[in-house]
Amino acid sequence: MLYSRALIPTVKEAPADAANASHTLLVRGGYIRKVGAGMYDFLPLGLRVLKKVEAIVREEMDRSGAQEILMPALLPAEYYKETGRWDLYGDTLFRLKDRKGGEFHLGPTHEEIVTDIARREIKSWRDLPMNLYQIQNKFRDEPRPRGGLLRGREFLMKDAYSFDVSEEAAFDSYETMRKAYCRIFDRMGLVYRMVAADPGAIGGSTSAEFQVLADSGEDAIVACDTCDYAANVEIATVKVKDQTESSEALEEKKKVHTPKVGTIEDVSKFLSTPKERFLKSLVYTTGKDVVMAVVRGDHDVNEIRLARALGVDEVFLATDADVQKATGAAVGFAGPVGFKGKVVVDRAAALVKNAATGANETDHHFTGVNKGRDWDGEVADIRLATSGDPCPNCEGGHLKTYRGIEGGHIFILGTKYSAAMGAMYSDEKQEKKPIVMGCYGIGVSRLVATAIEQNNDADGIKWPMSLAPYHVHLVTIGKEENVHAAAKKIYDELREKGVDVLWDDRDERPGVKFKDADLLGMPLRVTIGAKGLANGNIEVKPRTEPDPKKAELVPVENAVKVLADRVHAALGK
Amino acid sequence: MLYSRALIPTVKEAPADAANASHTLLVRGGYIRKVGAGMYDFLPLGLRVLKKVEAIVREEMDRSGAQEILMPALLPAEYYKETGRWDLYGDTLFRLKDRKGGEFHLGPTHEEIVTDIARREIKSWRDLPMNLYQIQNKFRDEPRPRGGLLRGREFLMKDAYSFDVSEEAAFDSYETMRKAYCRIFDRMGLVYRMVAADPGAIGGSTSAEFQVLADSGEDAIVACDTCDYAANVEIATVKVKDQTESSEALEEKKKVHTPKVGTIEDVSKFLSTPKERFLKSLVYTTGKDVVMAVVRGDHDVNEIRLARALGVDEVFLATDADVQKATGAAVGFAGPVGFKGKVVVDRAAALVKNAATGANETDHHFTGVNKGRDWDGEVADIRLATSGDPCPNCEGGHLKTYRGIEGGHIFILGTKYSAAMGAMYSDEKQEKKPIVMGCYGIGVSRLVATAIEQNNDADGIKWPMSLAPYHVHLVTIGKEENVHAAAKKIYDELREKGVDVLWDDRDERPGVKFKDADLLGMPLRVTIGAKGLANGNIEVKPRTEPDPKKAELVPVENAVKVLADRVHAALGK
Repeated sequence: MLYSRALIPTVKEAPADAANASHTLLVRGGYIRKVGAGMYDFLPLGLRVLKKVEAIVREEMDRSGAQEILMPALLPAEYYKETGRWDLYGDTLFRLKDRKGGEFHLGPTHEEIVTDIARREIKSWRDLPMNLYQIQNKFRDEPRPRGGLLRGREFLMKDAYSFDVSEEAAFDSYETMRKAYCRIFDRMGLVYRMVAADPGAIGGSTSAEFQVLADSGEDAIVACDTCDYAANVEIATVKVKDQTESSEALEEKKKVHTPKVGTIEDVSKFLSTPKERFLKSLVYTTGKDVVMAVVRGDHDVNEIRLARALGVDEVFLATDADVQKATGAAVGFAGPVGFKGKVVVDRAAALVKNAATGANETDHHFTGVNKGRDWDGEVADIRLATSGDPCPNCEGGHLKTYRGIEGGHIFILGTKYSAAMGAMYSDEKQEKKPIVMGCYGIGVSRLVATAIEQNNDADGIKWPMSLAPYHVHLVTIGKEENVHAAAKKIYDELREKGVDVLWDDRDERPGVKFKDADLLGMPLRVTIGAKGLANGNIEVKPRTEPDPKKAELVPVENAVKVLADRVHAALGK
Repeated sequence: MLYSRALIPTVKEAPADAANASHTLLVRGGYIRKVGAGMYDFLPLGLRVLKKVEAIVREEMDRSGAQEILMPALLPAEYYKETGRWDLYGDTLFRLKDRKGGEFHLGPTHEEIVTDIARREIKSWRDLPMNLYQIQNKFRDEPRPRGGLLRGREFLMKDAYSFDVSEEAAFDSYETMRKAYCRIFDRMGLVYRMVAADPGAIGGSTSAEFQVLADSGEDAIVACDTCDYAANVEIATVKVKDQTESSEALEEKKKVHTPKVGTIEDVSKFLSTPKERFLKSLVYTTGKDVVMAVVRGDHDVNEIRLARALGVDEVFLATDADVQKATGAAVGFAGPVGFKGKVVVDRAAALVKNAATGANETDHHFTGVNKGRDWDGEVADIRLATSGDPCPNCEGGHLKTYRGIEGGHIFILGTKYSAAMGAMYSDEKQEKKPIVMGCYGIGVSRLVATAIEQNNDADGIKWPMSLAPYHVHLVTIGKEENVHAAAKKIYDELREKGVDVLWDDRDERPGVKFKDADLLGMPLRVTIGAKGLANGNIEVKPRTEPDPKKAELVPVENAVKVLADRVHAALGK
């Protein structure tokens, strides 16, 4: 592509609403433009990246044996009504009516529609397994669309659905998808973790997230530095270091005056007692009951695990007024000693002897507190995992925390949709059974942004070769005829070898061209000028690793081979 | 693809709501399934055809220098409000609100959104010409969705928009698109006519439709049997055969009693006067005035041309009551003699001497009527062209009528959108001028159906090679190992040569397999059985021309070369 003929409207200023590198760089590089909140135009460069992600996803889905289909984006309400999601989905569903008043919505995901295909077309166990996928724009009325392509209201998604005769067979389909996803993320050149989204559940549904590591990620995950254990921090568990109780002598419980010293940090200093000795006590409501969650002073409560321990869907941190009512004291002075409601205590906190904790009396704490003697509670695994924690999966490994962006999610659905909608198959004995389903999503447009979050510097984007809109960014300096001729030859020959080339043929200063090249982020920048050509050379400068700063002179007669080999090697061709 | 692993749910019954061959065959062949009125799932075979159309369109658009982008389908109302289309579009626009009450709609076409890109990114004449296109699902709440993929409420469209400095430059862009469209329709193997949608207008906007000829088409068009003149019948004109008035002597006007004989057909018989001698007189209202349109008895009124002659947007045939009021007679007895309102007379009717026509008195006609002496009216070109009419564009050519399906439409928009939305460029003198636009649509999903309307027989579809989901339909007969081995070898080697092969490896009777092969319509059916192999042969049977009925034996060792050559030749490779 000739730069002078292309719509690549680079700009200096970051958009006012941009908080992420990818959002800033996609707009500054002329990849996308905003149409409305969470709605973007893909300009030519942006669409090229989107199509590259899409092509990798499609190739690996096809290789795995899945069959591509395309369902409508505009859907009659009747399907979601069959499963109850019409009511459950709430405000996130874009709803509309047609000219006759019929109810419709835009598809945020297509379980019902694909299940409708299954119930009509799948008759027998001979038709299974089957995996149907589509690559399609999805619509969700997000309460806070943000981050450019990271969380939009219209976005491109690959959604696949597997159909099997049994839970066991569904696991095989799940495993096939897991491997396909690994190939997809590997080919995109992204650093990611496959994160157990529910590692502890047995017999329940199985799912895993593909988290692309990036400091700007919304999701906190922990991963072992030794084995391949990784989990969303919200559901991660840890090994309890010391399962045997210490033999330390029990002290006497004492009430101490701690005026206006409410945080663990401050009380720890005030009492010269390490945080590990504290029982951090937080009051929650379940909607019905008020409960106290107790973790060690250096730990935090994992609310999802707390809810699971209580057997409820969700817990909510109590308001200040509710804390006062439940403990009789101001916030900061709660503790399990004498607490009237239910107490749930984390496994680590349960082992602390001679602990310090709030006295349920404003400006007062207890020291020398001991579980069993002074208070009691139900022991459960309710704390957030954090860096340095022992891995629950291996011996000697330690967890490290990362920030991640969810790029994919694979899930065994079981018979939730097939049972609700009557999608049955006949087994070998002609008995009707519900089809066991799985679903598998990849955020195609989100991955465009995610790749940038992981690959950028102060000057701009640093595309992995497989996602770059063009592999080579050819810059010509000056208007000499031999420069143009050399560039034209390299441009044509590279394209013949399947290398995507953007040729900056504009009448601009070298500085402007180099700045735009850095901003746009093609992996290889090639500069052709009269000076270099006089010595028979062109300059090749990689934008990315191994050494982005180091420019290299290449004899002009070798240029095509050197560049094509480098591109093909990076693409694994 | 192995048939046994593919989702190809063929069925015997046509869908109850199908009135078109393509609708019936797409459903029967398992290409599509209905989700709601005008909404369809593309199953694997259907999607493969859709992708083939899409790929041809994309290749030719790229070759023409257009740049692909992607705009959102869900759009804030503000853009359509800027041009007034928010109100003008009426019920056909799918409208919705987001969770905050903001107004949105689904995009039926994207002039405003692309003009918004233009006004932000195009600064100078140096940025022009530019052509931006997208391939995207569009949404229109059609009053009567029908014909399966022929008129859906969600459908895939390619829409391109050109931007130029002047009307003259816009014509160059239009011409580039016209040529690209011809290549697209040629490559799809479709018989089509490029139809002037407004040939008579001078200085107005220019547009042409690409009409794919099919008896089932909604649109009536006329085309010359000699030159390349073609036009939608509604706006077509004809040459007036005899411009000189005849020298026939004027008869006397006589009133004759024609009891209950109201139609031209019947009066012509009753009076033994040829239809060409009649003045067919129809009463119209313009909303404001009542007018009479007079055409020759063997002609029909072209209402669009009548409206244009009157300088109004539309005319409406008067109700029986209004006819009675305007003429004083029952319907069937209207005529220009003594008519009180305005009379518009077609050029041919104006030349008829000694004519017969209604007497504006129930059960009575006049004969011997002559324009100028007995009545008068404004002469204009207001009749429908029909088969046999002389071509207005060449000497000696005659028009023929066809039915067609609109597959594409190219259009010069002028400055309608750029002026309304302030999309300006600076010319060489730094003066701001509105960008001159063109727009160019192709109904990608409609063409899937259109190709079938033009290519089918009683047994099923007959795909053109370039659109077929698979080029070769391989049928194995029997379970012998050598049959499987021969098929496997041909299957693998054809695929290596870029030939798409569907291998019917199912455990079904030959009759079932052949019936499905005919229904699905791949261009080449290849049968491998033990009997043929014993003689070293396989059977090749083309589904389409030159001789679909003639099966041919091909030595097994030549099979791959023969088939690959045939496929590549048909694809022009």
